[in-house]
Amino acid sequence: MIVVLRLGHRLPRDERITTHVGLVARAFGADGIIYSGQHDSSLEKSISDIVQNWGGEFFISYEKNFIKAIKEHKEEGFTVLHLTMYGIPLPEVEKKIKESANVLVVVGAERVPKEVYKLADFNIAITNQPHSEVAALAILLDRLQEGRQLERAFDERFKGRIKIKPSERGKCRLSTNYNNRRLKREGDGIKIAD
Amino acid sequence: MIVVLRLGHRLPRDERITTHVGLVARAFGADGIIYSGQHDSSLEKSISDIVQNWGGEFFISYEKNFIKAIKEHKEEGFTVLHLTMYGIPLPEVEKKIKESANVLVVVGAERVPKEVYKLADFNIAITNQPHSEVAALAILLDRLQEGRQLERAFDERFKGRIKIKPSERGKCRLSTNYNNRRLKREGDGIKIAD
Repeated sequence: MIVVLRLGHRLPRDERITTHVGLVARAFGADGIIYSGQHDSSLEKSISDIVQNWGGEFFISYEKNFIKAIKEHKEEGFTVLHLTMYGIPLPEVEKKIKESANVLVVVGAERVPKEVYKLADFNIAITNQPHSEVAALAILLDRLQEGRQLERAFDERFKGRIKIKPSERGKCRLSTNYNNRRLKREGDGIKIAD
Repeated sequence: MIVVLRLGHRLPRDERITTHVGLVARAFGADGIIYSGQHDSSLEKSISDIVQNWGGEFFISYEKNFIKAIKEHKEEGFTVLHLTMYGIPLPEVEKKIKESANVLVVVGAERVPKEVYKLADFNIAITNQPHSEVAALAILLDRLQEGRQLERAFDERFKGRIKIKPSERGKCRLSTNYNNRRLKREGDGIKIAD
């Protein structure tokens, strides 16, 4: 099981970044996201709407006390992976973290209290340069999934109402009508691109 | 050479996302970013400040006419890689795109005109699910770099005024004073974490 814990969500500043964190978590095979900081119904709706239309079993929940959330997951046997540019480069810990059946991936905002660094089983750097928590999460999940999330076959797990048929050029989206569950082809190749 | 072309930058909506796109490009070894859409001096300053402090040779420039930018790069022999969830899954084209010495990676915003799909040498999907252009760029660059950007040795190329010493727990940042170029240790392990 892979759960993402997003710290310090602030409105309006983090609105889109936290949405991207959630969508990457889902698309790359995590089971859900817990977020902390400001409560945000609109974020929860954005993620839930994607899950409803595009499928999968992904959850989003809010937890004010993120230290409690980390401690509880540790007690349940989760390995806590904290993404920070101050940490140890991923290739040096990759083998070890893959031994864990259940991981909690902690994704910080600007200031992360030192307790998080202490509670984490691994403080992991996706490069030691400043960039993006969205990218850092993507690379970590990619390694945990061993790239399988990129394969056509992985897409089958979502069983969404909407799905994409990969095209060399253009857009092809297949969707199932809510009323009669009939498969409708909305576009074929370049034709529906505007 | 790797150049990123970010389409359709809109203010204030894309302020942080485009900054993340630029920082990922730099940290993952691209040579620079060209952006289109709204001109944004503050975005240019954010990226330039990071380059000044953290090093490297990364450029940022604005180009109103992105079709022209794509055509010019094609004429100069760049292979154009367009990231889109409608494209072909990355593992199916990975080998082919690695043959190119110079690539232009096109990162779209919400609506990408069909001409981009036609001009691209490859329309590439980093999963066929909706998530984030920041994550998509990170995964593509990771494959082009074969993961080298994550290694300690890669960090040496930046030769920045500021650099991180990787720590198992805590934050250790080394910086060179502008005036006397003396190396100053700002923290050691957990001590400077607040």
